[in-house]
Amino acid sequence: MLCPMAFVTHLESALDGTRLPAGVLHTTHEGRPLWVRYDLDAVGRALTKDALRTRPTDMWRYRELLPMDDHNAIVSLGEPMTPLLPCDRLASRFGVRALYVKDESLLPTGSFKARGMAMAVTMARQLGVTKVVVPTAGNAGGALAAYAARAGMTCHVFMPHDTPIVNQLEAAFYGARAFLVDGLINHCGAIARQAKERMGLFDMSTLREPYRIEGKKTMGLELAEQMGWELPDVILYPTGGGTGLIGMWKAFAELDALGWLATQKKPRMIACQSSGCAPIPRAFAANERFASEFENAHTVASGLRVPKALGDFMILDAVRASGGRAVAADEARLLEWATLAARLEGIAVCPETGACFDALARGVTEGWITPSDRVVVFNTGAAQKYVEALRCELPRLRKDAVDWELIARG
Amino acid sequence: MLCPMAFVTHLESALDGTRLPAGVLHTTHEGRPLWVRYDLDAVGRALTKDALRTRPTDMWRYRELLPMDDHNAIVSLGEPMTPLLPCDRLASRFGVRALYVKDESLLPTGSFKARGMAMAVTMARQLGVTKVVVPTAGNAGGALAAYAARAGMTCHVFMPHDTPIVNQLEAAFYGARAFLVDGLINHCGAIARQAKERMGLFDMSTLREPYRIEGKKTMGLELAEQMGWELPDVILYPTGGGTGLIGMWKAFAELDALGWLATQKKPRMIACQSSGCAPIPRAFAANERFASEFENAHTVASGLRVPKALGDFMILDAVRASGGRAVAADEARLLEWATLAARLEGIAVCPETGACFDALARGVTEGWITPSDRVVVFNTGAAQKYVEALRCELPRLRKDAVDWELIARG
Repeated sequence: MLCPMAFVTHLESALDGTRLPAGVLHTTHEGRPLWVRYDLDAVGRALTKDALRTRPTDMWRYRELLPMDDHNAIVSLGEPMTPLLPCDRLASRFGVRALYVKDESLLPTGSFKARGMAMAVTMARQLGVTKVVVPTAGNAGGALAAYAARAGMTCHVFMPHDTPIVNQLEAAFYGARAFLVDGLINHCGAIARQAKERMGLFDMSTLREPYRIEGKKTMGLELAEQMGWELPDVILYPTGGGTGLIGMWKAFAELDALGWLATQKKPRMIACQSSGCAPIPRAFAANERFASEFENAHTVASGLRVPKALGDFMILDAVRASGGRAVAADEARLLEWATLAARLEGIAVCPETGACFDALARGVTEGWITPSDRVVVFNTGAAQKYVEALRCELPRLRKDAVDWELIARG
Repeated sequence: MLCPMAFVTHLESALDGTRLPAGVLHTTHEGRPLWVRYDLDAVGRALTKDALRTRPTDMWRYRELLPMDDHNAIVSLGEPMTPLLPCDRLASRFGVRALYVKDESLLPTGSFKARGMAMAVTMARQLGVTKVVVPTAGNAGGALAAYAARAGMTCHVFMPHDTPIVNQLEAAFYGARAFLVDGLINHCGAIARQAKERMGLFDMSTLREPYRIEGKKTMGLELAEQMGWELPDVILYPTGGGTGLIGMWKAFAELDALGWLATQKKPRMIACQSSGCAPIPRAFAANERFASEFENAHTVASGLRVPKALGDFMILDAVRASGGRAVAADEARLLEWATLAARLEGIAVCPETGACFDALARGVTEGWITPSDRVVVFNTGAAQKYVEALRCELPRLRKDAVDWELIARG
């Protein structure tokens, strides 16, 4: 089935640039992810910064820079521009000039996964797909299940048995055929690919189709617009599969090509992982372009438990081109940092984002983040979805004999 | 402490109209809630529909109709206008012309409580409050804890022991001093009021301070703007304490006074409760203005478990003035309706909102909702927060011996 994509010229292999035609269903090329490429001159003629001002403030406002520019064809649950929250207490705490949290927890299903899935499901439906599948250990399954339901598609979700309970429940709640596997995410991926072959499902795994990147790209477009087209000095991004980091870096390049950025200076991209699962920092430190599988991966931050990312070279390329780095945060401190940020600023900071604050502290100590830097941290999901991680026992009161000393102690 | 509130003229008792001055700290008057009143002529001169077009799309865009018009003084976590999602499959299912869900789950902390707390905390801080308290059996505690953290306030939260686990965890996560009580919400309320006296806390309970209504009012303002200033025929609203219903009705009256509405016809307001806790439908049916306490209240929809609402007469007045009604939905079907809506439309419909769909089905059957009606349902919170209610056992697969028949059955 052909799909009109006004400004898309072609797709190309992210590894070797092999060109593929737009408007037909794509997965990968020789196992490598694809970039979507646009006629940016034509986009520049069709879209002005001024025109943006009166558009709805959702991710679709950048439609000329997205593969689908027909508003009637999009599959949407109302994806608002997420707030860029100034965090003065955290800035003081870490000793930087300005710190903002871009709070992706306000998206449908409570995580940044909504952006990618909204875009990918929109394109899949347009290209004739009716049945989708995804392996997931976190928020991706719920997001795909929701958008598949919205699109009237069948959805299969395969999850490791220790996937957070909220992620299990939400996938089933939206009507996905959800299963627990007595293995890891790579086992789920293998089952998903078998199911794809046996049952004719379309594989929505990270970077195995080209459009989730384009949806995630809107994080970068929004950030640029919200900062008056002047990008921050540093972006700290919790990096699992890395689609968001890759997508933002692509967004900045496209905005640069459009001549929309105040300066050509790009942010240093800091890919933040956990010491419990740190394939990207390990490859970064070893000066390698590809990351080998991280054995015995474990982390409280379910979204960071990606031992082997298909887009490893895309993440590492972006990080290096930006003058940034990849950092393995201390697994033991992820929750502590998330809780600190929540208490100081009232934001629902997820454990994944805890890794960003650990990296920030280290960067300031080690001098690769300086007091004059303007820093943006991405909060990729709502803390409320991490029931097991947050578990705590609240103090108990008797209704007929209230312990006021206990209350006073707090 | 005095607080400048540009367009506020005074406050008044919702029961007898007794006038109180603006700009000072208020709770209730003789135990009854207060209305905030504005100089609407002056608002009409200061604010035009046109001016709204270029404002940020958050709840503060209506600042002339809010008690705080100084943007630097607001306590905000970035409250986006929530999407009004067209739901064609649900419309067909129920047999009405048009059905929209206004999805409040995209607000900070995943529920509509954010609107009221953002406004109330803003005003409390402005008026010198540093310590707040709330009794809650649901989403209010997490919302207050988040905004209190954002404002740098101390927060106490008292919850019944059977409060949903996510609500317990989030209050503690944001740094509130949170306690479980071996009783019901009224016992928690009694402890909160004692704590207020003993410890100098400010009581943020529903309708015990005047500004949560004003925050919730923005649901009605947004809805009107999103519908092109032409209100729907019917609004189905899950009603616990009722602040949202009361606030919307106030919003419509203010918009009418401003001359902004396309017609004077207001929506029929349907207050939806559960058969497990239905004080408002009982009073409605008995033609009473006040609702007696509902004994042995129980419902899976924690937000509807309000056996005695301080604003009972305000809810009932609004419902009657609108030509609407109060409906006790079938407790046994709340989850079934929420799940149906989630599967058909991909929306995170909470159990409370399940009551609205039960009422809608009944309304169509009984003829008090007609096929030509345009209907709006409010989804007041994210289903993901209801872990106990959604509990399900996903089918399990062995990674080395996948049961393909099980997968095919789904």
